[in-house]
Amino acid sequence: MKPPNFRVLGFLFSGISAGIKKDGKKDLGLIYSEVPAQVAGLFTTNTVKAAPVQLGMKRIKKGLAQAVVVNSGNANACTGSQGLRDAELVSSWVGKRLGIDETLVFPSSTGVIGAPLPIKKIEEVIPELIDQLSPGGWMSTVEAIMTTDTFPKMAMATGRIKGKTIKLCGMIKGAGMICPQMATMLSFLITDANIQAPLLQQMLEKAAEESYHRITIDGEMSTNDTVLLLANGKGGHPILTRMDRDAEVFQTMLLKVCRKLTESLVRDGEGATKFIEILVQGARNREDAKRAAYAIAHSPLVKTAFFGEDANWGRILCALGHCGARMDPNRIDVFFDKALIVKNGLGVDDRTEEKAIQILKRKSFKVTVDLHQGKSQFSVLTTDLSIDYVKINASYRS
Amino acid sequence: MKPPNFRVLGFLFSGISAGIKKDGKKDLGLIYSEVPAQVAGLFTTNTVKAAPVQLGMKRIKKGLAQAVVVNSGNANACTGSQGLRDAELVSSWVGKRLGIDETLVFPSSTGVIGAPLPIKKIEEVIPELIDQLSPGGWMSTVEAIMTTDTFPKMAMATGRIKGKTIKLCGMIKGAGMICPQMATMLSFLITDANIQAPLLQQMLEKAAEESYHRITIDGEMSTNDTVLLLANGKGGHPILTRMDRDAEVFQTMLLKVCRKLTESLVRDGEGATKFIEILVQGARNREDAKRAAYAIAHSPLVKTAFFGEDANWGRILCALGHCGARMDPNRIDVFFDKALIVKNGLGVDDRTEEKAIQILKRKSFKVTVDLHQGKSQFSVLTTDLSIDYVKINASYRS
Repeated sequence: MKPPNFRVLGFLFSGISAGIKKDGKKDLGLIYSEVPAQVAGLFTTNTVKAAPVQLGMKRIKKGLAQAVVVNSGNANACTGSQGLRDAELVSSWVGKRLGIDETLVFPSSTGVIGAPLPIKKIEEVIPELIDQLSPGGWMSTVEAIMTTDTFPKMAMATGRIKGKTIKLCGMIKGAGMICPQMATMLSFLITDANIQAPLLQQMLEKAAEESYHRITIDGEMSTNDTVLLLANGKGGHPILTRMDRDAEVFQTMLLKVCRKLTESLVRDGEGATKFIEILVQGARNREDAKRAAYAIAHSPLVKTAFFGEDANWGRILCALGHCGARMDPNRIDVFFDKALIVKNGLGVDDRTEEKAIQILKRKSFKVTVDLHQGKSQFSVLTTDLSIDYVKINASYRS
Repeated sequence: MKPPNFRVLGFLFSGISAGIKKDGKKDLGLIYSEVPAQVAGLFTTNTVKAAPVQLGMKRIKKGLAQAVVVNSGNANACTGSQGLRDAELVSSWVGKRLGIDETLVFPSSTGVIGAPLPIKKIEEVIPELIDQLSPGGWMSTVEAIMTTDTFPKMAMATGRIKGKTIKLCGMIKGAGMICPQMATMLSFLITDANIQAPLLQQMLEKAAEESYHRITIDGEMSTNDTVLLLANGKGGHPILTRMDRDAEVFQTMLLKVCRKLTESLVRDGEGATKFIEILVQGARNREDAKRAAYAIAHSPLVKTAFFGEDANWGRILCALGHCGARMDPNRIDVFFDKALIVKNGLGVDDRTEEKAIQILKRKSFKVTVDLHQGKSQFSVLTTDLSIDYVKINASYRS
């Protein structure tokens, strides 16, 4: 099988070490489009927003971007006005060296909160960062944005719009502080499709609803989470400005890529040993289904039981019972994959529990809850809560 | 120092092993008052309520109780109509043998959810349980209600009402599934004071607001949580029926005992290595203060950082940022004990961080957040999130 080719017309990439990470790994990445691209973005809804997020939210209003400069190892969050100046400085250095307006440069940061960005280190290596730009440099950028990720995460899709083949590539980094209802973590998407910024934004939000907003690892919402989607139009088709059949082609590609990215993120959740889909169906309305699904996905007792491969379904019912969704405990059914474990709020039998334990031994399984209150459903992807999650997060900075 | 004496006029106690716990430890306890006592109670607000909770909520309406029979090792929750029949059976056996009306017997259970209560085992030992009743049997009952608790938890207070010395003793068991806004875990309080049930209930609710509802270990809300307060009037003073100076004496005793109990519960939180008070002040209103305090107390990233003795204050700001309380990130101050760590949203300096780490090495410390938005405050007690929390809960049933 030929390895997938993460090149997109008109985009160049690089990734190097600026010495921000203590271990000398790559920590500075650049994505550059030869021409200004239409841009859409999602940013954290946390009140405490990192400096580059504040800057990005301003710059995106113009609808154009030409470069994304990302560092890992330092979040440039809780760094006050100095942090804002630092983010602006980095983007101005990159802009100057690339010969483009600095407002077309989007800085982005991830890592430790509250430490000043080591901008001298960054300034020194910017010439190298730009020299190394190449159409085949994708993997270098992906590596440069990784923090506690244990493997690089990317996805791509191709499609045809108005007779032209277009391509969409995306990367994402996790792996903790993953929570719903926000632009989660860092994720960058690039395409040679030609789509006007407002439509692009609409499409990104729609795709996020079924991807970025459907995952949770630890219920945390970061200060830095950013998704950027750049469309440089190099694919050569006439510009799309409204939702029509051609736009649907791209919408489908976008959802596919976003879903793959977020799935891989959950698979690489900090310390995760299990990949779990929680589906709540039969809810009175979507809000109830969502509340119930997240109550299960966020419960430390449910998550530790999954880690221990313990079919302790009582903890699922207990988590449901205090989520606020309408339910009758005596009508709840629970399935592990296709096996019915709980019928009308009661455990089925000992043999079923044996079966349940076998399912929990799998790397990946689905928990389905039927509330029998209506027809709405909601699903969310999550992980177990392992000893390694605690280890990773107890010593993150040391 | 003389060991505290947990005898209360007119109360008898026992605790034995019925073989419900696999390790043969005590798992069945009885508290008995020689005369019917006025009773107040708090019960879980979880929609999924254990059978004994459902029964207790019915029986308490009469305002009288004479016995509490508690088992550990099995929660009798998610056990359907059979579970209700079992809870009724146990209380009727106890009532018959004691020669009292079964509706004066309050059953209570804690342990694994979803397994039928082994009532044959209980039936067999009820004669022994009652034979062993004695005024000095307090510790046996305390031991019988323990599950993952690592030490027995109790508190007492004395006071004078209308010239008579009265006494209040309380016990509590944890240690996971501890969450606010509910009658948390199992806790039994007995007194020889003479107080009418409605007033007793009012006092218990008031005390709970500052004790049971101020702690969190893992944000979980159990199916079984119950607090019962029995006042048998043996102290001999005229009955109290409304909030007056005499009642205030008891209210103060009650708050003191409830606080001691809940503090010891948090100190024994599952896997806890730290005892932490989170105080949020300067909030616009109490609701905001509470939301902010719980956002910090529930954040797995904050809790793992405390476990790792890592002064990662950025995680505190991050947790605050998505709690929904009104704040300006640039005006937040954070103290660890008396050391100012964050001023106006920014880390103070490296030396302060050194100091912060020294504070985090303590077994017990206080985190104070000042939002500078108003005059309201709220404090909550919590623990860190340790490797042992995961270990305990991954293998609870095995």
